[in-house]
Amino acid sequence: MADEITETSQTVAAGQLRAFIERVERLEEEKQTIADDIKEVFAEMKGTGFDTKAVRTIIRLRKKDQAERQEEEAILDLYKAALGME
Amino acid sequence: MADEITETSQTVAAGQLRAFIERVERLEEEKQTIADDIKEVFAEMKGTGFDTKAVRTIIRLRKKDQAERQEEEAILDLYKAALGME
Amino acid sequence: MADEITETSQTVAAGQLRAFIERVERLEEEKQTIADDIKEVFAEMKGTGFDTKAVRTIIRLRKKDQAERQEEEAILDLYKAALGME
Amino acid sequence: MADEITETSQTVAAGQLRAFIERVERLEEEKQTIADDIKEVFAEMKGTGFDTKAVRTIIRLRKKDQAERQEEEAILDLYKAALGME
Repeated sequence: MADEITETSQTVAAGQLRAFIERVERLEEEKQTIADDIKEVFAEMKGTGFDTKAVRTIIRLRKKDQAERQEEEAILDLYKAALGME
Repeated sequence: MADEITETSQTVAAGQLRAFIERVERLEEEKQTIADDIKEVFAEMKGTGFDTKAVRTIIRLRKKDQAERQEEEAILDLYKAALGME
Repeated sequence: MADEITETSQTVAAGQLRAFIERVERLEEEKQTIADDIKEVFAEMKGTGFDTKAVRTIIRLRKKDQAERQEEEAILDLYKAALGME
Repeated sequence: MADEITETSQTVAAGQLRAFIERVERLEEEKQTIADDIKEVFAEMKGTGFDTKAVRTIIRLRKKDQAERQEEEAILDLYKAALGME
């Protein structure tokens, strides 16, 4: 009970709340570490001479299956042709 | 017909496509102008000495009705008390 | 002076603050109206049979000049070839 | 050399490009796993009866030091008072 705080007729289990919050904070820290690692890989790529913007597009395209990707490209080419974009 | 382009068995009405795209582009331009106006109002506020971060919070809070806002603040205060955040 | 509120040794010109906030709110409303208009144009496009995802890509590409766009596409094609993506 | 692809007078080290991309994809997968874990903690919190929106605000506030947080709240309270927001 020492762990409970009451206010405006509501009670909150302080220990449980704190435990949840600390779990989220630890996970967010891990997520940030990985985000930093990804940034570093891109920096390394850039240092090696790769065009990282194109690499990001490639990574996005690889998430789609080949048929889906080819269909999307076909429609895009059709629209480009219609608009005279070479 | 001169306006239609066919490719991979699909046909696209070039004129209609172009008209749609130009409508969107005009609207996006107007939207950008207003976004720039908003930025300018905040710059002016800052120049007058207002804390624009707090003003942004106020604007966000004003979108809620009073009862909703007060309830949210009560819960937040309860959690802060539970965690010893003064 | 009736318009000024003092607290924790700070003074705020209430009327000026309110005027700034209302200017921002009006502009945000106008911006939202235009955003809704854009959404409607896309809905109309979709209803006419256009692939709105491809149209969005086209609009994004039209913001670049032709030389820039062609160079980007050449690099992308080079990377796709390197990875065997057809 | 078998690993190099030439096009439009540019050469790309296919193996190196593929290795970089696969490193990023592995890291992105790990990041997604953690993002899913965070989502699960919030779902669990909600199931226990916590107001997750308030918890998110608490987590955001805990990133600031106490003095900074208190100063921000003082300004916000000042503006609320100026606007008659109780």
